[in-house]
Amino acid sequence: MPATTTRPGASRTRSWWGWGYVDSHPDDAECISLGALLPGTLARPLPIPRVADLSIGRPVITPAPALAHLVTAAPEARAAHAMGKAYRDVMRALRGRPGRIPDLVARPAGDQDVADLLEWAGEQGVAVVPFGGGSSVVGGVEYRGDAHRAVLSLDLTAMDRVLEIDADSRAARIQAGALGPLLEDQLRPHGLTLRHFPQSFEFSTLGGWLATRAGGHYATGRTHIDDFVQSLRVVTPAGAGTSWRLPGSGAGPSPDRLFLGSEGTLGVITEAWMRLQERPRHKASASVAFADFHRALEAVRAIAQSDLAPANCRLLDPGEAAMSGASQDGSTVLVLGFESATAPVGSLLATALDLARSYGGRSEEPTDGSDAAADGADGAVSAWRSAFLRMPYLRDGLARMGAVVETFETAATWDRIPALIDAVRTEVGAAAAKATGHPATLNCRLTHVYPDGAAPYFTVAVAGRPGDEIAIWDDIKAVANDVLHRHRATITHHHAVGRDHRSGYDRQRPEPFALALRAAKGALDPHHILNPGVLID
Amino acid sequence: MPATTTRPGASRTRSWWGWGYVDSHPDDAECISLGALLPGTLARPLPIPRVADLSIGRPVITPAPALAHLVTAAPEARAAHAMGKAYRDVMRALRGRPGRIPDLVARPAGDQDVADLLEWAGEQGVAVVPFGGGSSVVGGVEYRGDAHRAVLSLDLTAMDRVLEIDADSRAARIQAGALGPLLEDQLRPHGLTLRHFPQSFEFSTLGGWLATRAGGHYATGRTHIDDFVQSLRVVTPAGAGTSWRLPGSGAGPSPDRLFLGSEGTLGVITEAWMRLQERPRHKASASVAFADFHRALEAVRAIAQSDLAPANCRLLDPGEAAMSGASQDGSTVLVLGFESATAPVGSLLATALDLARSYGGRSEEPTDGSDAAADGADGAVSAWRSAFLRMPYLRDGLARMGAVVETFETAATWDRIPALIDAVRTEVGAAAAKATGHPATLNCRLTHVYPDGAAPYFTVAVAGRPGDEIAIWDDIKAVANDVLHRHRATITHHHAVGRDHRSGYDRQRPEPFALALRAAKGALDPHHILNPGVLID
Repeated sequence: MPATTTRPGASRTRSWWGWGYVDSHPDDAECISLGALLPGTLARPLPIPRVADLSIGRPVITPAPALAHLVTAAPEARAAHAMGKAYRDVMRALRGRPGRIPDLVARPAGDQDVADLLEWAGEQGVAVVPFGGGSSVVGGVEYRGDAHRAVLSLDLTAMDRVLEIDADSRAARIQAGALGPLLEDQLRPHGLTLRHFPQSFEFSTLGGWLATRAGGHYATGRTHIDDFVQSLRVVTPAGAGTSWRLPGSGAGPSPDRLFLGSEGTLGVITEAWMRLQERPRHKASASVAFADFHRALEAVRAIAQSDLAPANCRLLDPGEAAMSGASQDGSTVLVLGFESATAPVGSLLATALDLARSYGGRSEEPTDGSDAAADGADGAVSAWRSAFLRMPYLRDGLARMGAVVETFETAATWDRIPALIDAVRTEVGAAAAKATGHPATLNCRLTHVYPDGAAPYFTVAVAGRPGDEIAIWDDIKAVANDVLHRHRATITHHHAVGRDHRSGYDRQRPEPFALALRAAKGALDPHHILNPGVLID
Repeated sequence: MPATTTRPGASRTRSWWGWGYVDSHPDDAECISLGALLPGTLARPLPIPRVADLSIGRPVITPAPALAHLVTAAPEARAAHAMGKAYRDVMRALRGRPGRIPDLVARPAGDQDVADLLEWAGEQGVAVVPFGGGSSVVGGVEYRGDAHRAVLSLDLTAMDRVLEIDADSRAARIQAGALGPLLEDQLRPHGLTLRHFPQSFEFSTLGGWLATRAGGHYATGRTHIDDFVQSLRVVTPAGAGTSWRLPGSGAGPSPDRLFLGSEGTLGVITEAWMRLQERPRHKASASVAFADFHRALEAVRAIAQSDLAPANCRLLDPGEAAMSGASQDGSTVLVLGFESATAPVGSLLATALDLARSYGGRSEEPTDGSDAAADGADGAVSAWRSAFLRMPYLRDGLARMGAVVETFETAATWDRIPALIDAVRTEVGAAAAKATGHPATLNCRLTHVYPDGAAPYFTVAVAGRPGDEIAIWDDIKAVANDVLHRHRATITHHHAVGRDHRSGYDRQRPEPFALALRAAKGALDPHHILNPGVLID
């Protein structure tokens, strides 16, 4: 298939230190306005950091001559690959203390390049950190420590093509380095869509979604990227392999499921056959306000346990609803959306609204959306969506004002959800206030719901103490992780483990699986060069 | 929760050599009638084999005294645990040539018993073959070869309780040895159901379904038992572990997915928290006849790619339709069924029927089923279901008439399905006729359909040559496996790999996963005692 698509955003400049595009960053005036929302923040924003101010040494290694054309040691490239986009990362950049900067950045053009780079790195004892869009918020794409003589960031984004489409089976073979918009642009002419729209959609890749088991667009049912994988191609230091394209199989443990979520520690996912959808032709959405958050939880559980399967079923607590403009009156807001390529969805929405009302919800008139209105619906729904995409930029603006502001997410079964959310509110809110002496904001929304549980997502914002912001966040996060652990809530539902969640992951993972994973790592990565420090040692 | 349920079927005698209950076996007269359908079969049925006629030696090992109360060496128990229920197994019993008979049969009462038995077996070099309902049709529950001094069959069926129910999250903690009917009997008072109804339902266990990644009740969408697992408890020779109960998680590769499908090679699944359903209150079903099989395939694909998600969407080719009584006029028959606990499903069925008609289907009037009519619908639907459950008994009756009669199944993406089915029909049919000199029957149905493909299920029946039946079946099966491999169709969609599918599995499994699996096996089963010969060496 000829690749003629222009890369979306190609003319815009990506920020090396903060979220997204430079031209979308809040300017100083907006930063000051943001800061005014949080008592105790700085009077003036921290200056935008410059690569030239970093002390980037010369790389301690040069690539083999045969690989030189794939590799750069340019300071800008190295700085942009030094970290992900967590609050910790942004603040480290703002404070001029980034982590260890990779010696080299490689941009392989294909599988053989990846294999050659891994072979060279294994021989040389060079750590290899696979890098997609670089949007990790868990320390997943940096190097920590000094056990390796040099570090190579393996940037997959030159491998960004849709290589093949099987229209009969509604599936496509896609290179792992394709960023969300480019991937969808290549599918659109075929009337197909992957329909995986994480908040990082513009700045994350298929390979990143697969390696981190990303949670996606659909608030209910199949939404983890795992479920849309038909086959994977993986290049490991011990050899490459491709699983068969199958709609289902009972042949042994799923080979793909071992690499999904392996976060670059077992091999490099270079391409995948993905299951696609037709573009939805029918849409309907509405929002429902609740006076009581716990009653709203019950309503959401009832909807999640029905057969209705809304595409969107996001519950915003009063703070979250206010922040996103969905409601300013202290209500909890449920954003409901249905979509289908087959049949009108108005009656599904009506049934869901009836259910919500039976738990005390007050709904506006539902809106039927055409495919043109598509992903932009109305009222609270639309307000929430715009705010959703803008949020990481605002976080960086607040960071420049010296705020400690970050998100964390989890999932738990319904029997634990109410007490879990209450405990996070109380304990994490108290920890944030105690660590800073300032009032803290703690908001919660449910991003995904299942018949057996839900995925709550929390946002913490509090003014920091200049220079201590990262230590403060680490303290808050430690309390958060402790609450999650006591309530047996997962350390991550869709942000991955990376380096920041290692201790929580180690406590969660059953010991027999730890033994198996360590053995698998030893077999596939005998020189232990792949993303050291992530998941396993 | 008090366990007061009587074990269903407790008063009936299970066959040691054939399918199911002895009192359901076809008698000699019915065997003769069955044989009359296949030219060239015997005039009289082979005699029913007796344990007393087997040469069962004394066990070569005795259990440690502390374990003696868990273990029996009774010939009847050993014979009943020597093999599964494949045609090969039945014919081996009929011909008096069963495989190696286990020395001992253990029935642990709990996890500690399992751990103690594994420890003893590891010390003694005794092979351990985990055994649930014993319904394997792929040589999954026997021992082949002589690399181990003794063989222990580990029968889990004494661990058959529903231990805990979480009604909020609609989930239950269930011991792995529960057979289907007992499991459902314990859930029914709570208004809940696992809704996993494989053909072997009466004679297979939760643990067996999990260890083999069984395909289940639903013809579309989530149907593999994998998707209904919330958490697993596994006892391995290297220690036991339990995954957390989570509705979703992005923390590393799924620990459960490594043990799902591991077929007893990595550890013994002793219990699981399973996601449950409410019992459906609304049902509707209908059948659609097609003059052309390939047009029917297109109709099924359209339905599978819609959002309709029928619970039943089984396509029977003319032979299969005739055999099950669904149609005698050479039509291909599509059996469609919808069910829901939330809302009436009549309009979903109507939409699906409209779709089917647009591909040339002729439908009868749909039938709305109440919950009482439940799993028995009407007309062709009902005829098919009765035939479905009776089929394995009839297979054994035909085996007694010297026929070679067995099933095999697979899955492939839609782009390959038409050519795959045509090739199986032509090549396997020809191989069966050539191997026997008799006309062969080869029927096909689709058991499960997905947006990206389908799972065809084939039945072969042909008169054998007395004494050569197993060799003939092996020849036919080799041709079948070759056709599947050439068409990149999986070696198994829901029957597991066992020992019979090893060569096909080895060809299908990507090499990096093979390396990882072998390493995991070495770490969890260092003495290589668990189900030797299955999946990996």
